[in-house]
Amino acid sequence: MQSEQDVIKQVAPYSAHRIVPGGERFLKNCWYVAAWSNEIERKPFPTTLLNEPVVLFRQEDGTPVALEDRCPHRRVPLSAGTVTGDAIKCAYHGMTFNGKGSCIYAPAQEKIPAAANIKSYPVVERHTLVWIWMGDPALADEKAIPYDVVDTLDHPEWRHKGQRRHLKCSYRLLMDNLTDMLHLAYVHTSTIGNPAIEANANKMKLDRGDNFVRVERWMVDQPPPPGFVAAAGFTGNVDRWHVSNYRPPSYFRLDLGAAPAGTGAPEGKIDPSKALVRHNINCITPETETTCHYFWAESNRNWQRDPSITEKIYDVVLEAFEEDTEILELQQRTININPNAREVHLAVDAPGVQVRNILRRRIEEELAAESRPQSAST
Amino acid sequence: MQSEQDVIKQVAPYSAHRIVPGGERFLKNCWYVAAWSNEIERKPFPTTLLNEPVVLFRQEDGTPVALEDRCPHRRVPLSAGTVTGDAIKCAYHGMTFNGKGSCIYAPAQEKIPAAANIKSYPVVERHTLVWIWMGDPALADEKAIPYDVVDTLDHPEWRHKGQRRHLKCSYRLLMDNLTDMLHLAYVHTSTIGNPAIEANANKMKLDRGDNFVRVERWMVDQPPPPGFVAAAGFTGNVDRWHVSNYRPPSYFRLDLGAAPAGTGAPEGKIDPSKALVRHNINCITPETETTCHYFWAESNRNWQRDPSITEKIYDVVLEAFEEDTEILELQQRTININPNAREVHLAVDAPGVQVRNILRRRIEEELAAESRPQSAST
Amino acid sequence: MQSEQDVIKQVAPYSAHRIVPGGERFLKNCWYVAAWSNEIERKPFPTTLLNEPVVLFRQEDGTPVALEDRCPHRRVPLSAGTVTGDAIKCAYHGMTFNGKGSCIYAPAQEKIPAAANIKSYPVVERHTLVWIWMGDPALADEKAIPYDVVDTLDHPEWRHKGQRRHLKCSYRLLMDNLTDMLHLAYVHTSTIGNPAIEANANKMKLDRGDNFVRVERWMVDQPPPPGFVAAAGFTGNVDRWHVSNYRPPSYFRLDLGAAPAGTGAPEGKIDPSKALVRHNINCITPETETTCHYFWAESNRNWQRDPSITEKIYDVVLEAFEEDTEILELQQRTININPNAREVHLAVDAPGVQVRNILRRRIEEELAAESRPQSAST
Repeated sequence: MQSEQDVIKQVAPYSAHRIVPGGERFLKNCWYVAAWSNEIERKPFPTTLLNEPVVLFRQEDGTPVALEDRCPHRRVPLSAGTVTGDAIKCAYHGMTFNGKGSCIYAPAQEKIPAAANIKSYPVVERHTLVWIWMGDPALADEKAIPYDVVDTLDHPEWRHKGQRRHLKCSYRLLMDNLTDMLHLAYVHTSTIGNPAIEANANKMKLDRGDNFVRVERWMVDQPPPPGFVAAAGFTGNVDRWHVSNYRPPSYFRLDLGAAPAGTGAPEGKIDPSKALVRHNINCITPETETTCHYFWAESNRNWQRDPSITEKIYDVVLEAFEEDTEILELQQRTININPNAREVHLAVDAPGVQVRNILRRRIEEELAAESRPQSAST
Repeated sequence: MQSEQDVIKQVAPYSAHRIVPGGERFLKNCWYVAAWSNEIERKPFPTTLLNEPVVLFRQEDGTPVALEDRCPHRRVPLSAGTVTGDAIKCAYHGMTFNGKGSCIYAPAQEKIPAAANIKSYPVVERHTLVWIWMGDPALADEKAIPYDVVDTLDHPEWRHKGQRRHLKCSYRLLMDNLTDMLHLAYVHTSTIGNPAIEANANKMKLDRGDNFVRVERWMVDQPPPPGFVAAAGFTGNVDRWHVSNYRPPSYFRLDLGAAPAGTGAPEGKIDPSKALVRHNINCITPETETTCHYFWAESNRNWQRDPSITEKIYDVVLEAFEEDTEILELQQRTININPNAREVHLAVDAPGVQVRNILRRRIEEELAAESRPQSAST
Repeated sequence: MQSEQDVIKQVAPYSAHRIVPGGERFLKNCWYVAAWSNEIERKPFPTTLLNEPVVLFRQEDGTPVALEDRCPHRRVPLSAGTVTGDAIKCAYHGMTFNGKGSCIYAPAQEKIPAAANIKSYPVVERHTLVWIWMGDPALADEKAIPYDVVDTLDHPEWRHKGQRRHLKCSYRLLMDNLTDMLHLAYVHTSTIGNPAIEANANKMKLDRGDNFVRVERWMVDQPPPPGFVAAAGFTGNVDRWHVSNYRPPSYFRLDLGAAPAGTGAPEGKIDPSKALVRHNINCITPETETTCHYFWAESNRNWQRDPSITEKIYDVVLEAFEEDTEILELQQRTININPNAREVHLAVDAPGVQVRNILRRRIEEELAAESRPQSAST
């Protein structure tokens, strides 16, 4: 565990991200969640991702595709049109594009104009989610999907329930929120927080690398928070864990749970028939500079003991996210009034600051790569 | 008729108009429709034309006048005031202006300040419409009204029904729409379009001059579209014509109709007691860069055979314009996201491109004339 | 009294204030009304003053305090939090600030970060109003409160009824309106105006100094306006007075009233048991460049004769202010269309022009003082 002083030292060199409406640069060469798998059907699904209009639909074999949602002919959104076969047809004049963005039909002429193609985004479907690559398609690599964040969404021993939320705040504010455990003691006192949170807030094990942050916290032999009691029926004190795993750009798997105190959980002895073992899975995709799409789910290993645990935990966490939404949207409104107002960091912000630093470095690297000459041959 | 290749050649040198919110230049030295005649009464009628606030009202003899809708004293809209005699009185302090924009009463003082005049716009009332000249009043010439577009609105042999619409799109998008026949085959399949449209889309006779475009198309011995059957009761195939007449800045008279196939229509033998003979009359006035006022009417020669034909045709076309409105407003929203996204032209766009070119040239000429020194004496 | 010519000469050198959305400079080193006393309780009261987010609340002893409404930690508005003791606690992470803006609690650490303070605004409570100093706290001086404008709000011989209004117009437009008597003859004909107003509009005694304007007008032996009859039951002609007292930045006490004609009012003989003796008290605080908070009250000495007079006068004036609100918001909308459109002044605008000049000079002096080097020692 780190001392308060160690943590403050980490915070010191940090300077705040500017969250200014308009003009923000997003990380592009990475996978974002475009939708839950069950949201994408044969009919066009319009969305805005990183300020770009995108339309998704399934081809005849069920494969999802994603295209620029703008016909190059007269700039009508293709999502207003219809899917025919593996292609989408513009509602205005029938220009038709296949899943690669190639025009396959131009009305009232034989020759298809060479320029009549649109951007096609690499898309893959994994673990109940549809993933999209917003940057250079040549760099899209399925191995870059943050599998370990989401792989219990369709694991046979786990059961999940999730949701799409639309938040009127920068994805960065939600990232801060998800890295931060302290606010549970203030915002979520009726659901997932209690005073034990603050007392233990700096007792953390913080690991970090170029592309991850891991924060492990234990609250040993403490009363369980109300939501844990409601979902899992604890009757006495618990050993509670809260492990936050960050993957860039904006993924968080929170390993959360509690076991009856003194049954060996801190040493790794966890019996899912008595403990509560959860993954809180979080995927955030910027919509604009000040709005985001939020895909989250609760996944647990306890449903075999009682199938209603999934619903109960989901309901508790949904209530907590609704509390967060209110705070985050107020925060964004206050930032909009004066985007340059300063920010002060606390010791407990160390994990969040690490997360911000990783994202910033990744964006800076991407910008540097773009400005580099394309060929370096001599 | 032109070949596809001829048409593509015309399109080639075209570069797209930028339709960017804010800062667009409109053609000013021309007549626009300010209102339908029956909309203007004694009480003030406020409107915004080419981004300028305008108030219209009728003088005691019934003559309509149009003034800047802003009192020069404290900048309250005059339309909030009252018309007294031939003048309008500001609601705030009683400053009163005659139809020429001259202040005729300044409260609580004898002398009327020399600067207390407002802009008065030349206005004439012709063919059930009130026309306004937004540019230099010295250049206003009634002969420049596009009479041939609108003169069947009050012709004894014709009967019309029209409407004012407000569209949340650039007037340019509606102009494209009105020049274009192809979209009938996609947007209006239940009303005025059918597959015959696309099959014949490039069989057009395109004439153009400095200030007009005329596109004539014939669909010979084809099934009539649903709306034609509903209005005129065709039972067999028809010879259908679609002639689009453009006058700058934004006027279109579409000569539309059909006669039983083989009765000589293409050779000019048209019997209104058996054929359907329509003018679809379109007058568009920019409100702002991204909104417009749309005055349209259906006028026909067939009402003597059956007075309900006017209503029936109006209802069919109204339904079609509601379909167009949906597409056009989506188009504007997509353009707003990225006004610089490219446009690709098709062969069938040749008439629309000609229309855009004429308007662009007229605007460029007007800008050039403004930047020229006022006197050229040596 | 001044001649029309004298007044026009005063107006001549005046050039209009630009009322442009965004970027306007407000006078800062002065007292503004933040709220009515009874609006501020223990629970946080959020407001926006001069584009700054402010939260007010009462300490345990009842003293009101005002703080920057933005936690320096994560920029959440403190008004979303809770007041505990004499301090306010942030809803997000519990950062707590006392009434001086000093952080007294930082969660999960012992040391309070030195930078974790927020702006605290000098606040005093006087005459039923809570006053706030938006500029340099070192310059805040209670003597600068415009006591003479508001001191009948809690004077034992007077009784008042007031209101907070939110107007969608610049505070400057409301200031023009309050300096101006002429509009009563146009906007308020059913309440507090009548034709006598205009006939007497230039019969004014105008006094001014560096920090006040006083305009005295008398309408002798004239019919009373409808609202005066309704409130005070006049049956014959009256001698009516209308004295406007301006104090910068945006305070107006209108001394208004009437006595039965010929009973000596113009010579100072006023008997409150027969006359109507009113203060119309007006305090305006800019919210943004184009919106303002308006605190007004009617205060009268006649309630002892008939307690319902206070209600009656309030109702009449409320109706008048609702008429004004409509005009002022139309005025702002028209100014927004073209903020640079010219303004023409009339002779009757002389008092309003003086008011504008004083405010402009005060703002210019404040700007000059800010750009001056802090020390001038040699």
